[in-house]
Amino acid sequence: MDLYKLLQDVKNNQISIEDAEMQLKKLPYEDMGFAKLDHHRSLRSGFGEVVFCQGKAIEHLIHIYQRFYEHDTNVLGTRATKEQYEEVKKALPVVEYDALSHILSIQKKEINKTGCIAVCTGGTADIPVAEEAAQTAEFFGSKVLRIYDVGVAGIHRLLSKLDEIHSANCVIAVAGMEGALGSVLAGLVDKPVIAVPTSVGYGASFGGVSALLTMLNSCAEGLAVVNIDNGFGAGYMATQINRLAVRAE
Amino acid sequence: MDLYKLLQDVKNNQISIEDAEMQLKKLPYEDMGFAKLDHHRSLRSGFGEVVFCQGKAIEHLIHIYQRFYEHDTNVLGTRATKEQYEEVKKALPVVEYDALSHILSIQKKEINKTGCIAVCTGGTADIPVAEEAAQTAEFFGSKVLRIYDVGVAGIHRLLSKLDEIHSANCVIAVAGMEGALGSVLAGLVDKPVIAVPTSVGYGASFGGVSALLTMLNSCAEGLAVVNIDNGFGAGYMATQINRLAVRAE
Amino acid sequence: MDLYKLLQDVKNNQISIEDAEMQLKKLPYEDMGFAKLDHHRSLRSGFGEVVFCQGKAIEHLIHIYQRFYEHDTNVLGTRATKEQYEEVKKALPVVEYDALSHILSIQKKEINKTGCIAVCTGGTADIPVAEEAAQTAEFFGSKVLRIYDVGVAGIHRLLSKLDEIHSANCVIAVAGMEGALGSVLAGLVDKPVIAVPTSVGYGASFGGVSALLTMLNSCAEGLAVVNIDNGFGAGYMATQINRLAVRAE
Amino acid sequence: MDLYKLLQDVKNNQISIEDAEMQLKKLPYEDMGFAKLDHHRSLRSGFGEVVFCQGKAIEHLIHIYQRFYEHDTNVLGTRATKEQYEEVKKALPVVEYDALSHILSIQKKEINKTGCIAVCTGGTADIPVAEEAAQTAEFFGSKVLRIYDVGVAGIHRLLSKLDEIHSANCVIAVAGMEGALGSVLAGLVDKPVIAVPTSVGYGASFGGVSALLTMLNSCAEGLAVVNIDNGFGAGYMATQINRLAVRAE
Amino acid sequence: MDLYKLLQDVKNNQISIEDAEMQLKKLPYEDMGFAKLDHHRSLRSGFGEVVFCQGKAIEHLIHIYQRFYEHDTNVLGTRATKEQYEEVKKALPVVEYDALSHILSIQKKEINKTGCIAVCTGGTADIPVAEEAAQTAEFFGSKVLRIYDVGVAGIHRLLSKLDEIHSANCVIAVAGMEGALGSVLAGLVDKPVIAVPTSVGYGASFGGVSALLTMLNSCAEGLAVVNIDNGFGAGYMATQINRLAVRAE
Amino acid sequence: MDLYKLLQDVKNNQISIEDAEMQLKKLPYEDMGFAKLDHHRSLRSGFGEVVFCQGKAIEHLIHIYQRFYEHDTNVLGTRATKEQYEEVKKALPVVEYDALSHILSIQKKEINKTGCIAVCTGGTADIPVAEEAAQTAEFFGSKVLRIYDVGVAGIHRLLSKLDEIHSANCVIAVAGMEGALGSVLAGLVDKPVIAVPTSVGYGASFGGVSALLTMLNSCAEGLAVVNIDNGFGAGYMATQINRLAVRAE
Amino acid sequence: MDLYKLLQDVKNNQISIEDAEMQLKKLPYEDMGFAKLDHHRSLRSGFGEVVFCQGKAIEHLIHIYQRFYEHDTNVLGTRATKEQYEEVKKALPVVEYDALSHILSIQKKEINKTGCIAVCTGGTADIPVAEEAAQTAEFFGSKVLRIYDVGVAGIHRLLSKLDEIHSANCVIAVAGMEGALGSVLAGLVDKPVIAVPTSVGYGASFGGVSALLTMLNSCAEGLAVVNIDNGFGAGYMATQINRLAVRAE
Amino acid sequence: MDLYKLLQDVKNNQISIEDAEMQLKKLPYEDMGFAKLDHHRSLRSGFGEVVFCQGKAIEHLIHIYQRFYEHDTNVLGTRATKEQYEEVKKALPVVEYDALSHILSIQKKEINKTGCIAVCTGGTADIPVAEEAAQTAEFFGSKVLRIYDVGVAGIHRLLSKLDEIHSANCVIAVAGMEGALGSVLAGLVDKPVIAVPTSVGYGASFGGVSALLTMLNSCAEGLAVVNIDNGFGAGYMATQINRLAVRAE
Repeated sequence: MDLYKLLQDVKNNQISIEDAEMQLKKLPYEDMGFAKLDHHRSLRSGFGEVVFCQGKAIEHLIHIYQRFYEHDTNVLGTRATKEQYEEVKKALPVVEYDALSHILSIQKKEINKTGCIAVCTGGTADIPVAEEAAQTAEFFGSKVLRIYDVGVAGIHRLLSKLDEIHSANCVIAVAGMEGALGSVLAGLVDKPVIAVPTSVGYGASFGGVSALLTMLNSCAEGLAVVNIDNGFGAGYMATQINRLAVRAE
Repeated sequence: MDLYKLLQDVKNNQISIEDAEMQLKKLPYEDMGFAKLDHHRSLRSGFGEVVFCQGKAIEHLIHIYQRFYEHDTNVLGTRATKEQYEEVKKALPVVEYDALSHILSIQKKEINKTGCIAVCTGGTADIPVAEEAAQTAEFFGSKVLRIYDVGVAGIHRLLSKLDEIHSANCVIAVAGMEGALGSVLAGLVDKPVIAVPTSVGYGASFGGVSALLTMLNSCAEGLAVVNIDNGFGAGYMATQINRLAVRAE
Repeated sequence: MDLYKLLQDVKNNQISIEDAEMQLKKLPYEDMGFAKLDHHRSLRSGFGEVVFCQGKAIEHLIHIYQRFYEHDTNVLGTRATKEQYEEVKKALPVVEYDALSHILSIQKKEINKTGCIAVCTGGTADIPVAEEAAQTAEFFGSKVLRIYDVGVAGIHRLLSKLDEIHSANCVIAVAGMEGALGSVLAGLVDKPVIAVPTSVGYGASFGGVSALLTMLNSCAEGLAVVNIDNGFGAGYMATQINRLAVRAE
Repeated sequence: MDLYKLLQDVKNNQISIEDAEMQLKKLPYEDMGFAKLDHHRSLRSGFGEVVFCQGKAIEHLIHIYQRFYEHDTNVLGTRATKEQYEEVKKALPVVEYDALSHILSIQKKEINKTGCIAVCTGGTADIPVAEEAAQTAEFFGSKVLRIYDVGVAGIHRLLSKLDEIHSANCVIAVAGMEGALGSVLAGLVDKPVIAVPTSVGYGASFGGVSALLTMLNSCAEGLAVVNIDNGFGAGYMATQINRLAVRAE
Repeated sequence: MDLYKLLQDVKNNQISIEDAEMQLKKLPYEDMGFAKLDHHRSLRSGFGEVVFCQGKAIEHLIHIYQRFYEHDTNVLGTRATKEQYEEVKKALPVVEYDALSHILSIQKKEINKTGCIAVCTGGTADIPVAEEAAQTAEFFGSKVLRIYDVGVAGIHRLLSKLDEIHSANCVIAVAGMEGALGSVLAGLVDKPVIAVPTSVGYGASFGGVSALLTMLNSCAEGLAVVNIDNGFGAGYMATQINRLAVRAE
Repeated sequence: MDLYKLLQDVKNNQISIEDAEMQLKKLPYEDMGFAKLDHHRSLRSGFGEVVFCQGKAIEHLIHIYQRFYEHDTNVLGTRATKEQYEEVKKALPVVEYDALSHILSIQKKEINKTGCIAVCTGGTADIPVAEEAAQTAEFFGSKVLRIYDVGVAGIHRLLSKLDEIHSANCVIAVAGMEGALGSVLAGLVDKPVIAVPTSVGYGASFGGVSALLTMLNSCAEGLAVVNIDNGFGAGYMATQINRLAVRAE
Repeated sequence: MDLYKLLQDVKNNQISIEDAEMQLKKLPYEDMGFAKLDHHRSLRSGFGEVVFCQGKAIEHLIHIYQRFYEHDTNVLGTRATKEQYEEVKKALPVVEYDALSHILSIQKKEINKTGCIAVCTGGTADIPVAEEAAQTAEFFGSKVLRIYDVGVAGIHRLLSKLDEIHSANCVIAVAGMEGALGSVLAGLVDKPVIAVPTSVGYGASFGGVSALLTMLNSCAEGLAVVNIDNGFGAGYMATQINRLAVRAE
Repeated sequence: MDLYKLLQDVKNNQISIEDAEMQLKKLPYEDMGFAKLDHHRSLRSGFGEVVFCQGKAIEHLIHIYQRFYEHDTNVLGTRATKEQYEEVKKALPVVEYDALSHILSIQKKEINKTGCIAVCTGGTADIPVAEEAAQTAEFFGSKVLRIYDVGVAGIHRLLSKLDEIHSANCVIAVAGMEGALGSVLAGLVDKPVIAVPTSVGYGASFGGVSALLTMLNSCAEGLAVVNIDNGFGAGYMATQINRLAVRAE
């Protein structure tokens, strides 16, 4: 239904006020132009689309990527398997795959990056999740500073990087095992820290729950947590924060 | 040890280079003036000091508040009991107590508030935690918009407040029970949402764990979580974000 | 805002179509008459209001009860303490309190009861939760058949009551400890069974979690579960089902 | 033993009263014609038989399906694997398999469908469980309205479907991840809502436990929960409710 | 209904066979004399009655004890509080209370004890639960051998008692903390061992769950477990086993 | 060291009393002939040996079976895989494998079976665990009565078998899902009931934990529990009880 | 029985070798002088006795303390309440109570302290547990270095104390909340670190479980963990290690 | 930056004191020669390097091993798969692989072993973890005494080995299932016991959590715990303790 048309009809007496009122009340929300209900679009606009590839059928995936490709849209696909990549590539040779972060992307337009987000990891095994966070942030236009393998068992390496980390608007702390990196970072820097527990570990690490609890119980100020292995979520929220800060520069 | 003095001694040949090098390597970190290790001070500077009152002895508390009072410093004490308030008041009649948020404060200087943080709750029982968040944010100079009792069981009330919420730089979602408010808000607004699960509930709510899990598993973008009932933590991080945004205005 | 008035203004050229469209899009949802968003009202209409008393301040409670009393509305207050009762009674001597179910009620109008809901318990310790369910169902106009203390350790007592239970449109099974009553009932009757685990028990009963898991894992067909001790929730849903059935008689 | 025959013998003095009493007391329950102990039969009668295929051996499965086929009985097999399907098909080419819901069925007689059950999902990944629920309900004679992918992260899509959902006698809410769909639906409609948590998710979703807890802790009225991924259980109970309602039309 | 009377009526043609068959099928199970459904009576017969005192109202308790007293029945009341004892004693001075085991008993008839059950504890803190087990076993006619404080941290004390323990027909192992006593005993003796985890402990003992898990995971043969702190259950089952053995002597 | 020899040397003055005393105190326990430390041998003696096959290497397994075979010993191997069977069979064609119970056995001598143990299951999926229990009991000389698929969802089937079950000295209740069979049996019979939770189930059954909790929380008397899927443990303990009873016949 | 006497009898032909052998095999272990079974005595010898006061009855406690006092033995009582202290003091005025560590002690002999153990805490709330550890270590003769409130949120304070910590033979890390102190210390020093999680915290700290998991999952080398709040256990084991090291000096 | 050079410049007036002070404060920590921050090096020095192989890419692994090989360094690689071994061997035929402990090592220099560590296991299935501990300890220069399969179900075998165990400076107790070995050992010996829970078990052993809890809750003194299956961690810490003791000999 067309709202403008309805009001015109009221004006032109082609519909009674009572009938128009009835129609408006039954109006499907979406048709009324409730763009405000999808404000996320504003963040993404001019950047591209995100696809959660995990569990998606190949044909479905090819279809999605082709449609975006035809509209000249950049695409960031998270949690893609190598098999998905190989099949999509046959249909659309332009796609690129990062085996570390499991990101399957098309970049048709150059992305202009601003501000700064620091992405830190406790160990080398946390890097895949960190790369998901970092590449998500870059996709949406943030500069990213990567500082990997600076966990508490080698805390002097972290201390030597502090000046660099202070230059960022937001810090992402990615760590499994004991997960103390989030606390340590929030204790050392005065910017918002988003902690990502990873499922890296064995024994009583319970697939990341141990790191998650450590991060939630941090006594340092300025730390919030996303789900286990949720690099995308951290990268997205860090971008929201970075944008707010960049407007000021 | 005085670093300047040491270097002078090197210059004046009163200490050999070898000995000076040795002393520098053994130097306690703090004495070197590692102010950069307490960057949080920059956020707080000009605002005041925070005291975590829970479990602190009365005498100890009185001592702390008196010292700050004498230095004309504003104080925000969280998780204070009524008993603590009454005893501190005897010694220092200027303290004020908010029975809802359990905040025990001294405000000697007017606080200039800027930007905007929206604090929302699912039910009325979540308000004490929300107030801890809101008053923390205000203490550090953020304007706060309070939108309470807009949980998913009455989602139309939330929808009617969306325009107001969109004006904020950061949203805090406080909810117990099923804790879905965080997801709903992150699905509707494009600003960072900090979710605070509360221990409100009964049965299988497990003291807030149910709400915590809901929030961690949100499929909406732009959401991070702090510990159960940690209003202070949410208010602090929201302030960090709000400051980044305010610099731009 | 008045929707009818707006459309009249459009018709009378007192507002441009563009401006009317703008106003409609920004219109708070509630003001548009979205009564359909509170369909629960239809269930309750003519019956009365529910108050969740747990944790509510005395003054607040007195205020609520007085307002409903003045409007000749029946009130069902759940989880009221004896202290709350005694204070409210001072202000409003007409309130009644059931110490077993912790229900604090005002009944100004006779309730006409129809259909039938069977409320069964495993043991005598489960009766408080069962009474919350039963009295909730009665408050909303359902007849209730109480069959208590028929748990699996004395299954012959349950078998002797089967004919009575078959006469109900819906069965509520309230049980703690091993919680097998829900399964047994769903295996014996062909009506929907709503199972309520209770926190009754000790040792590895974990405050009702053991009974909850038993009920969720039932291999009998036609069983769904509400939260631990949530008699109100079971009574409410059973009433919804009973109403659907009663329309047929 | 034949009860009628026994009584005849009593009458004809071919057995003493004492012996007859003894025999009656030792009588296996089933032989006494305790049809009332399998009332579920009445729900299914005229519809067909259900087979839980998971873990069943191929030969066993073929035997069951053939026997039902020869008796002209419809069969609904849940949780069948593709391998089971392919083997059964060799012996009985008439079987049909729905790869999405994992249902392996024979439909020899047309099913007359009445009433209405709405089956909603939070995301696309929840559809297999939803289809198990929907096809179960259809198998037992319910009309089903499918409304998929209307989770809280895109709540405006759900709102636009509310009128359709209100036409149902019972609503099934299928959701994983944060599982808030159940609460949202129960807050918006006044019919019984059966919530099915799904094991869809990652990180701290714990194979559906997070969604399960969310649903149990819902503060909306009129919601009960079945086991994780238990689409069949939800479809069965919804059918019981739908039948009660349909009798009225 | 009287079964004998019914059969007489059939014989005397005062009821048709068809009507008698109908009545028999609707007959409440209990009325048919299904004594076999309460076989536990046979264990208790000649011994007395058991009352679970926890949570029972004083008046209710007094009523129960008085009735048994008047029938010359021994009574074993478990989990009685001192308050319950003092009130019951006022009405019935003959009751006795064991503050250690929380057992409130009346012994009107001498109990003849046979066979042997060994009750062992890991520490002194486990003795209250052990006494509940021991006194339950004695109440039902078992001789009991008490061997307390022989946990694994002092395993040599246990070894020195092995000959005595071997004389029993059944062993009860009561232990909290690490709960290894059950395993050790089952590894050393060839009689059934019933393990009772206790809620004694702190830290990660989780109210007895740690001891429970230890006992369930025992790699020793001939061990089964009852609920945390369930001394009564262990004493009862040990008595069943002891009786089977005693018949042989 | 040879104890007899030592004493002889004392007698013959070939060693001083002091030295003999010293040697005795340092004597390795085993060498002293502590046969009493392996009393389990007495249960097994004349029956055979048990092998826990799970995880054992093929060569190791073949070696064990061959050694027992050469000594004319019966062997009961639990948790053997089909692969283990096939490899052992090549070396020792006499071994037999039961694919249901995963038992790999050699029976060289006829086993004389006495007494009676009833083994009941809730569903057909519990039969593998039940067979492990039943065959273990038979291996050690117990008669076994198998009563399968009598769970609470079809409780009338169980009731019709009660007389048979009463003839046993001990009852084993094997059940997964909601696990209520143990409670129901203990409520109906007066013999010791050993409950075995199984890992059968899905959703919130947590690999048998739900059934385990149900069984531990049973309010019926005379029930103890072994570990999840531990059919061997139940069969072994039931045999111990059966032996005690059989001595009486 | 007297072993020497027995051997003498053998020698003197007052008992046959066969009878002596029999007696030796049945000999209670303890009587054989198995002092080696209580090797812990060697650690304590010359230091004193330990009493676990928690839950002990007053009379019992007084009795124990008096007996040790009369034997001039030092006593270390852990987890004593203030009430226990006050009652024991009436009978034995010499006892001393440390309200912080809840230690109730008698020190009759001076303790000579050697070596060094560093006891560190994350926050001030962890001090009571740390003091239990420290005073236990001192009681058994270790020098203790206390370094409190050096948690990761203020890591620079910890770094400035490193040289002192390096002087210890063993480090005890006491921390609640996120519990990262153990990792940080083990990453920085090359001595064994014993980590004690404390139950300090709120929200998702779960009474110390969060800190416990953090410590177990530490990726730093040289760290082991004791139970939550188990200061005594840490102090005892640290003393064992310190003694081994001191022997070398 | 070169600290010596900077001080020289100060002395030679080539830099002002103010500038030198500034540079020192900004100096990356590492560049200052903070060797003291890697004290672990001192333990390893002269012994070799450790590689955690799990999850490492083959090329990466080959690179690491080749570099160490060229520097004549011994290498201990833990958690290596057979596949990793075979690939590394192709490039570097000198590597050796122990399939039991999954250790992939190069030993170029003879290791001189001192002191003694006893490594005990409960069952044979715990040996792989025990070997990881034992070989780690040997790699760093400790003598190791292996005492396997001495769990509590066969406690007499453990007792016969006590004298040997007492000769060690530190005991490692490796056990799964009920995990009681740690307690038993700590109760019998007076040296520090490091307990390693293993993931060996089934049913309610929860991948080692049951054994972990048993060990944490031990009431024996002198016991600390490392993570599930963490043989390396136990071997490392035992080596630290052994070294402290050896210095004394």
